[in-house]
Amino acid sequence: MKNLIVGQSGGPTAVINSSLFGVIKEGLQHKDKIDHVYGMINGIEGFLKDHYMDLETDVSQEALQSLRITPGAFLGSCRYKLPEDLEDPVYPELFKKFKALKIGYFFYIGGNDSMDTVSKLSRYAAKHKSTIRILGIPKTIDNDLVHTDHTPGFGSAAKYVASSVCEIGIDASVYDTKSVTIVEIMGRHAGWLTAAGVLARKFEEDNPVLIYLPEVSFDQNLFLEQIKKALEKKNNLVVCISEGIHDKDGKFICEYASEVGTDNFGHKMLTGSGKYLENLVKEHLGVKVRSVELNVNQRCSTFTQSLTDAREAATAGSYAVTAALDGETGKMIAFNRSAGTPYDISCGLVDVNEVCNKEKTVPLEWIINDGTDISTDFINYALPLIQGNSAIPMKNGLPNYAYRK
Amino acid sequence: MKNLIVGQSGGPTAVINSSLFGVIKEGLQHKDKIDHVYGMINGIEGFLKDHYMDLETDVSQEALQSLRITPGAFLGSCRYKLPEDLEDPVYPELFKKFKALKIGYFFYIGGNDSMDTVSKLSRYAAKHKSTIRILGIPKTIDNDLVHTDHTPGFGSAAKYVASSVCEIGIDASVYDTKSVTIVEIMGRHAGWLTAAGVLARKFEEDNPVLIYLPEVSFDQNLFLEQIKKALEKKNNLVVCISEGIHDKDGKFICEYASEVGTDNFGHKMLTGSGKYLENLVKEHLGVKVRSVELNVNQRCSTFTQSLTDAREAATAGSYAVTAALDGETGKMIAFNRSAGTPYDISCGLVDVNEVCNKEKTVPLEWIINDGTDISTDFINYALPLIQGNSAIPMKNGLPNYAYRK
Repeated sequence: MKNLIVGQSGGPTAVINSSLFGVIKEGLQHKDKIDHVYGMINGIEGFLKDHYMDLETDVSQEALQSLRITPGAFLGSCRYKLPEDLEDPVYPELFKKFKALKIGYFFYIGGNDSMDTVSKLSRYAAKHKSTIRILGIPKTIDNDLVHTDHTPGFGSAAKYVASSVCEIGIDASVYDTKSVTIVEIMGRHAGWLTAAGVLARKFEEDNPVLIYLPEVSFDQNLFLEQIKKALEKKNNLVVCISEGIHDKDGKFICEYASEVGTDNFGHKMLTGSGKYLENLVKEHLGVKVRSVELNVNQRCSTFTQSLTDAREAATAGSYAVTAALDGETGKMIAFNRSAGTPYDISCGLVDVNEVCNKEKTVPLEWIINDGTDISTDFINYALPLIQGNSAIPMKNGLPNYAYRK
Repeated sequence: MKNLIVGQSGGPTAVINSSLFGVIKEGLQHKDKIDHVYGMINGIEGFLKDHYMDLETDVSQEALQSLRITPGAFLGSCRYKLPEDLEDPVYPELFKKFKALKIGYFFYIGGNDSMDTVSKLSRYAAKHKSTIRILGIPKTIDNDLVHTDHTPGFGSAAKYVASSVCEIGIDASVYDTKSVTIVEIMGRHAGWLTAAGVLARKFEEDNPVLIYLPEVSFDQNLFLEQIKKALEKKNNLVVCISEGIHDKDGKFICEYASEVGTDNFGHKMLTGSGKYLENLVKEHLGVKVRSVELNVNQRCSTFTQSLTDAREAATAGSYAVTAALDGETGKMIAFNRSAGTPYDISCGLVDVNEVCNKEKTVPLEWIINDGTDISTDFINYALPLIQGNSAIPMKNGLPNYAYRK
């Protein structure tokens, strides 16, 4: 009889706790093989300080159910990077702790960097003939992991972006005067989430009229020209930009903002690309302009949780447990999409070394109209991922989230 | 047989179209007295240009039902202020148009400034012995109208603020390092919406730990001291501020930001109070800090629409129609709350001249702990207003909003 331990790492999403729910639920169903289901508090970093909990005894049934709609990371997270050198003393220290806790199954829910942890731990385990099975469960709103159709977390964030852009467009169109609204969306290097803004478009020439991803260089003068031209056709423009848009030399647009503003201590005023472009448009075109930074809400809104996403996240968690029991290790759970319609995915496994430290960006052929729009290929890809609304248990008018004691 | 006309004015909310729904539905039920139900496009300003529509023939049944969950202003809005001088030629021009359309009932859904329009039109009507009945239907997320327990629109915005602050707190607490998250909430002069942040607090010492309203002067040094002290007790702070916080001389905190930053054209960089305070905290306390401006999402999110708010908004609309048919004019619909529990309101009428151009702020005795927290009196007042979730008709994974053809 061995024990299971699970941790969360990196930035949280609306469904990272759904994956945790999947792991716990599946883990508790194999009483013949798994004795205890533990959770690391604050990932591997907290575990090194012996911070962990028993997820069977220390989580109420109500909290367990609420996990599925609770954003953030129930177990806490970390941004701890294990050393490249597998001879580093942190490795034997970790495996000593695993041994003391009789860990047979190790699961890490996270993105790119977390898969790096899974890679290193599984390589160390192989080298030292450890029987611990080590698997990664993907999560990131950025959707930038390779070798999987998409990542849990993206669908809900995309649903937030699409519905918000739609609502912002409705809000921005109430007056009979020309206006520009710039919506800044997360995604430093990959524009998947910004591209989801296109899902808000209900008919041709509907908002958003212009969408800029970091996959394509951003030219400020061209941008002003494109806004000017669009204003000739339409009164109220909504424009989506990725936080990571940059010029042809790779300089982020938000860096222009920090260059021009200084605070009273002579330090740079840090502001986003959206705010910078708001000022730029105001200055050059003299039109009413507003910028909206969707900010952390896009990754932690429960009301826009996609039921498809939440279910898939939980499935990834439970699949990881059964795969580990089958002897798999050093792998990440991946989603494979069946060809054709209706939308259907199945879980599979990929070598985690092929995933970590790589980044999947939006295919350039999906970015059209001189880098200002998104093709229907993307719409067909993303639309199934935002389907369905999760039922939200409420308490006193607000979602009844799970809290760690 | 007379006709009815309804318009929307001022900033939109999540339920202003619920009130419109109430007017249309009730208007169409009195076929013996009301022939046509018209809608002004872009309020009184659009009506002056003969922009209006027939709300019976030009709106499908599906769109009519979707009105209840559609944010923005279905009819479009305006910020048009009628002249103070009732001898101005715009008045006879308007009433000539009313006469041509056989208008007997005029409804204006809006806030403070819109009630000013209702006041002027009804005074002009009285002076010139017009029989047109002119009524105001309240709407504002700011909740700053006098002589009504609260305003339609506030409950949904408060629900957005409370759930967002809660989610932001969960998101901000995943790492084991100290951090400050400043949430900037709408409300230039009245802090009702910012106060709603307190509803996110689930237990003592839970976030938000500090809440600053515009009703009380804001001292930057004191603020830094309060943050510093709070960080001694808690790792991850969420702080709510109103966009309208100002120093003891009445200078807005966001004005400090625009003073210190200039863009490459030598113009002021405009940014909000939250971003300014983010930089201030970073500079002085060297702690990880982020600011989140809830922006227009707080007034246009459908997913956080309060069912109580949506129902009350529709009731206000239908009540206005029956009141007008009963001969009332020059009044605004008001909500009266019954004493005790359970929560219950009834509609009444107040003289619109007593409402317009006045502002109701949060009672000072509800602002506690040296202006950094909100009392349970406010919680008891606000909690009933955010109860219930509206059922959202969906299409392709997104809310099926009503669009004007």
